[in-house]
Amino acid sequence: MISREALRDLLDPEVPGRLGRLFRAWHFAAVFGGVAVAVATSMDAVWSSSARPWLIAFVVALSIAFAVLYGLRIVIAGDEQTAEGETAGAARLRYVRSPMGLVDLMACLPIALGFAVGAPTQQIMLLTVLWVFKLMRYSQGLAILGRVVRLEREPLMGVLLAFLIALFLAATLAHLLERDVQPDAFGTMPKALWWAITTLTTTGYGDAVPITAGGRMLAGLVMMCGILVFALWAGILATGFSEEVRRREFLRTYDLVHKVPFFHDLGTSLIAEVARLLKTREFPVGATVVRRGQAGDCMYFIASGEIEVRTDARPFHLHAGSFFGEIALLTGGPRTATAVASKHSMLLVLDIADFRELAARRPELTKAIQDEAVRRQQRGPGRGAAAD
Amino acid sequence: MISREALRDLLDPEVPGRLGRLFRAWHFAAVFGGVAVAVATSMDAVWSSSARPWLIAFVVALSIAFAVLYGLRIVIAGDEQTAEGETAGAARLRYVRSPMGLVDLMACLPIALGFAVGAPTQQIMLLTVLWVFKLMRYSQGLAILGRVVRLEREPLMGVLLAFLIALFLAATLAHLLERDVQPDAFGTMPKALWWAITTLTTTGYGDAVPITAGGRMLAGLVMMCGILVFALWAGILATGFSEEVRRREFLRTYDLVHKVPFFHDLGTSLIAEVARLLKTREFPVGATVVRRGQAGDCMYFIASGEIEVRTDARPFHLHAGSFFGEIALLTGGPRTATAVASKHSMLLVLDIADFRELAARRPELTKAIQDEAVRRQQRGPGRGAAAD
Amino acid sequence: MISREALRDLLDPEVPGRLGRLFRAWHFAAVFGGVAVAVATSMDAVWSSSARPWLIAFVVALSIAFAVLYGLRIVIAGDEQTAEGETAGAARLRYVRSPMGLVDLMACLPIALGFAVGAPTQQIMLLTVLWVFKLMRYSQGLAILGRVVRLEREPLMGVLLAFLIALFLAATLAHLLERDVQPDAFGTMPKALWWAITTLTTTGYGDAVPITAGGRMLAGLVMMCGILVFALWAGILATGFSEEVRRREFLRTYDLVHKVPFFHDLGTSLIAEVARLLKTREFPVGATVVRRGQAGDCMYFIASGEIEVRTDARPFHLHAGSFFGEIALLTGGPRTATAVASKHSMLLVLDIADFRELAARRPELTKAIQDEAVRRQQRGPGRGAAAD
Amino acid sequence: MISREALRDLLDPEVPGRLGRLFRAWHFAAVFGGVAVAVATSMDAVWSSSARPWLIAFVVALSIAFAVLYGLRIVIAGDEQTAEGETAGAARLRYVRSPMGLVDLMACLPIALGFAVGAPTQQIMLLTVLWVFKLMRYSQGLAILGRVVRLEREPLMGVLLAFLIALFLAATLAHLLERDVQPDAFGTMPKALWWAITTLTTTGYGDAVPITAGGRMLAGLVMMCGILVFALWAGILATGFSEEVRRREFLRTYDLVHKVPFFHDLGTSLIAEVARLLKTREFPVGATVVRRGQAGDCMYFIASGEIEVRTDARPFHLHAGSFFGEIALLTGGPRTATAVASKHSMLLVLDIADFRELAARRPELTKAIQDEAVRRQQRGPGRGAAAD
Repeated sequence: MISREALRDLLDPEVPGRLGRLFRAWHFAAVFGGVAVAVATSMDAVWSSSARPWLIAFVVALSIAFAVLYGLRIVIAGDEQTAEGETAGAARLRYVRSPMGLVDLMACLPIALGFAVGAPTQQIMLLTVLWVFKLMRYSQGLAILGRVVRLEREPLMGVLLAFLIALFLAATLAHLLERDVQPDAFGTMPKALWWAITTLTTTGYGDAVPITAGGRMLAGLVMMCGILVFALWAGILATGFSEEVRRREFLRTYDLVHKVPFFHDLGTSLIAEVARLLKTREFPVGATVVRRGQAGDCMYFIASGEIEVRTDARPFHLHAGSFFGEIALLTGGPRTATAVASKHSMLLVLDIADFRELAARRPELTKAIQDEAVRRQQRGPGRGAAAD
Repeated sequence: MISREALRDLLDPEVPGRLGRLFRAWHFAAVFGGVAVAVATSMDAVWSSSARPWLIAFVVALSIAFAVLYGLRIVIAGDEQTAEGETAGAARLRYVRSPMGLVDLMACLPIALGFAVGAPTQQIMLLTVLWVFKLMRYSQGLAILGRVVRLEREPLMGVLLAFLIALFLAATLAHLLERDVQPDAFGTMPKALWWAITTLTTTGYGDAVPITAGGRMLAGLVMMCGILVFALWAGILATGFSEEVRRREFLRTYDLVHKVPFFHDLGTSLIAEVARLLKTREFPVGATVVRRGQAGDCMYFIASGEIEVRTDARPFHLHAGSFFGEIALLTGGPRTATAVASKHSMLLVLDIADFRELAARRPELTKAIQDEAVRRQQRGPGRGAAAD
Repeated sequence: MISREALRDLLDPEVPGRLGRLFRAWHFAAVFGGVAVAVATSMDAVWSSSARPWLIAFVVALSIAFAVLYGLRIVIAGDEQTAEGETAGAARLRYVRSPMGLVDLMACLPIALGFAVGAPTQQIMLLTVLWVFKLMRYSQGLAILGRVVRLEREPLMGVLLAFLIALFLAATLAHLLERDVQPDAFGTMPKALWWAITTLTTTGYGDAVPITAGGRMLAGLVMMCGILVFALWAGILATGFSEEVRRREFLRTYDLVHKVPFFHDLGTSLIAEVARLLKTREFPVGATVVRRGQAGDCMYFIASGEIEVRTDARPFHLHAGSFFGEIALLTGGPRTATAVASKHSMLLVLDIADFRELAARRPELTKAIQDEAVRRQQRGPGRGAAAD
Repeated sequence: MISREALRDLLDPEVPGRLGRLFRAWHFAAVFGGVAVAVATSMDAVWSSSARPWLIAFVVALSIAFAVLYGLRIVIAGDEQTAEGETAGAARLRYVRSPMGLVDLMACLPIALGFAVGAPTQQIMLLTVLWVFKLMRYSQGLAILGRVVRLEREPLMGVLLAFLIALFLAATLAHLLERDVQPDAFGTMPKALWWAITTLTTTGYGDAVPITAGGRMLAGLVMMCGILVFALWAGILATGFSEEVRRREFLRTYDLVHKVPFFHDLGTSLIAEVARLLKTREFPVGATVVRRGQAGDCMYFIASGEIEVRTDARPFHLHAGSFFGEIALLTGGPRTATAVASKHSMLLVLDIADFRELAARRPELTKAIQDEAVRRQQRGPGRGAAAD
């Protein structure tokens, strides 16, 4: 048995480590396998083949695994945030009611219910499509999108309202203009609405096409409105997105910058400025961060992990709180050493463009970096900045 | 009978309150019900069923209700802005001529006229589609869109002109290239224009498709132009939209910030900076603003309403002019109390990312907030910041 | 005969005035009339009707008018920029070679040539479609678009290249996957390219549709690439557009700000800041700029023209260099007077949001405006700020 | 034989020069010729014509040429960055493994293999489509796009995930709703997925169209989701693109600004500010940069090359490090001289809008430019600023 601690780490999509990666690989494979089964079993040729029992067994096995996982997640959810005086039961209920809790439940319950009420097995197999929601857990991007759509709710609803008004007007006019000529395609409002939505979204199936002069002019207008609606939506989301991305990156970096001792000696206002410019980047064990002789276009601060620097002399290690790669930025020359992540590391990257702008505005930063570099060289390569 | 005051509040889409919400719910239901009737009655199966008299009665009743509402709105419009020396009659005329006045008139007059001239009842029912315009009253977003389109009128017209030039050129060339091979689809300019607009908007019904080599190359070019036009439109609107949203938010916040006493002691320049960063958010009675133990990612200033703070000690109330949630921002720890809106409240939210940037640039803000927090604690939890 | 001066003003699309507006209205009507004739005559029903001679006469008359206009434009082009030592002939040649010169030539020459070589009259009528290019002269927006596309040439070409690579790959793969099953639709590369472009632009005529499993997967990928190409294009243009609009507005305003005496007393740096915020707006004679009692959301500086201010006292006039509407901004109350343009005026508008931000950053601006307002009131309403 | 140096210059797409341009023209012609052959030979009419041997010979000859080029590139790749202690062999291997190395290999190897294994010649001809990748070498824009997509990977994947979830849900629901009515179009999940992707991307072939009321409502929703996905993608890319373009321009300019002696006397912080505003522009020999008497909307700094200035006096030359065109900006008048590139020149352009903003913020820049202009005039036109 693994400990509760280890289990929590294993199920957390953010925690690095070999076992976690294995689990996530299995999870992805299970989800895509399940969806593939849903697609395959819907074809009678596959369903009536000899593969049927294997496919059913595969789905049943995974459903049971997902049910067990759901149970485990409920158990460990009890450990979260009990510090706030919440009972373990309340914390568990919170997970059960959360969107991810519902997704995890939907991955096993409907299939079990299907078998329980004796639904046709071929239909039950289709329910594995619901597993696709489980991927949401791994997507940072989706969370950002969700927040953007929520923040820009009001203008998005405004566009939707404009869309609805255009839709109903277009359908009514098309109905009036075309119903006598094409009763099959425009004879009732539902039919006209079907034409209107295919046209307003510029999908254009071609199953309902106006043929009168008036109907075609209307259709032309409707298509152009469709493009406008589309463009408005894109414009709103572009605006919201750009702000949200900037906000996230700043917050994540601010937290990391606080862990880097080098920045402690600088003023708070410089930290905020640096945090706005730094980008975070992860490096797994063994990844080459910088290669000797390459052109240098950024410098690195170590937020967590360990970096091995390989020079002509004996290689040395840098730990969280150190920085490297500054020489290429200060001199403009190529990298003088190769740096490899000897542990899974989180680095903060300062781009050369940002470095130069910042250095011009805040000369004390360049000075601090130069002082540090000099101090490091005096101690000799064997000690390195790792001593900080 | 309700008073004129209460009536004005009831009909104002922005005023909160139970009766107002009930009225708006009824209004929405009426509009959607009316449109649903228009859709349903256009189908002969519904029209010849026994539901017919009920549907007619439904529409007639709502039309009368909308006519009464129109009358009431004219009456209360007389009370607006008489301060500027305008007579009540002039103010009423202004409402009648305004877009919303026309929409309100269109909701009842055409149906009455339809019955008056003895039009077929099934056709009259279609007029309820016009009710969909009434939703415009509730959409802030639509007003923003209108302003953006008006401000960006010039470049949008430029794209429209480019669109028209492309349209006519494409149609003429397609007419010349395809008319001998497909006289049915490209034999005249109107037919060629129909093809051109379906292609330029990338709708592609498929009822007219070039088959000569030249026609197909032309079509490929036209499709790419369509994408370009689309992209230009999206680009223009994105730009305009982003500016308008920023402007609105700033103005709304600036007015609210002026109501918060805490900001009075700060300089004007700091107020303007804070106003640029704050976001407004409404909380109905009973809504939980902050929950104890949660991670804190923003602080709140109360512009109007009342907030109940629940700590281990006796709960206390904060009124307009106070702030709360600053401790989580200053210490980085979880929320130390739960805050619930005990009245309908308008809060100003300062995001943690903005707070940190601002605090770095303007250290006096952090100091003012800290001083205030200390003062509050010295008076004991029972009194709280509500005394400010 | 009208003078050369007057003629130049008449033909300039930017110069205001009654005659100029009449000319432009005629120009627009002529262009749209010509295009309408091209559309109408392409239909045999119209062509074989008794309207034929009238339509021909209409086009011939307009073509002659356009030829005369072309000649006049060549003549007056000789007056332009001779200050730089250029001969009148060189200036004329420059016009003839310019895009608008070519458009003006294309409006008459091809039709004349058509009659000269004895082309079928119905075909000659189609050439009036070329007149649509003449509208380019009136569109500021189109000029902006042209500049943006030129500036963003490099990334746009990059996307185009990606588009071409995707197009050829998609066509080749579809050709390989589908040619045996559907030789009619995918049997040769030109046919496959036709399918690829209809799919990559998401037009989807439906005349060529893959039916093999591989072909359909490929098609799905191609459609998603199409959306990506589209999105890239929109992104690039949005970026370029936003910068270009800002640049134009700034330059236009900077020139006007220099004409306003009030700004002369302020420092240069404040002028540049104000110029970035001001928006230009034109008001024809008799237009109401501000109405008494309305909420005030901006103030106005007069760059050119004359404004009549109507208060309780005797109305007075403000001339170029004055400003008005500042009281509503300073006090937050409604407008205290009505302002009407007594001549065609160009005003600079300072939005309330921008005013507040600016006033916070540069308190000297508020002071200067207040001083000016006080001085104006001391002189009494009869004299007004017009004396400045 | 040409030297190794000259060969490297010839193959570098960025190095200017007559021979390099000739080589690039040949390269472009070869690629487009090859693709045209692939398209032509796929048509049996062409293949069975007498042109067949010529087409084959053309492709074989070019393939051999590309193979030779590939070999040459491997050889000269050995010279690159050996300074970093890398052996020539390692540098060569790096090229072979790089994307462009693979593209160069793909241009010759598959065709050779095709002949080797005795594939049908008509099929081998299709492989020339792969040559289209060779154009990637010439596109700066494509490199920018690649970087943007890489940087915005996370949110783009989020949208892709949302797209996949919508796709599978839509397909499953459509399958359930329509399979009994239209087993041919929706009977299996693969068929339903085909419908879903054509609809979600708004391509709308029209080969599978829902006909039940439920199916059509679903389709309407799916189309609107498609627009949303599209808009999200556009929004993300617009954001990323705008940042990347700004970064590139800054870096390129910063390097060039350092080569201009005039800027050495200014402070570092002013250099960074200027570098943010300058745009780079290339002028081939003989190109006119500025024409006397034109309105001046920018000034130029020479980063490399030579400019001939033609005034009333004897013409003089300006070399790298000088600037010109500042008089029109300082006085607002027209250009006082004509400037022509007497060598291939790289200029830095300072736009009038940026100049005015910068001059307001940093008066020392205007002063430095004025001093320089005065000094230049004192020395007389014959010496010019070239002496700096």
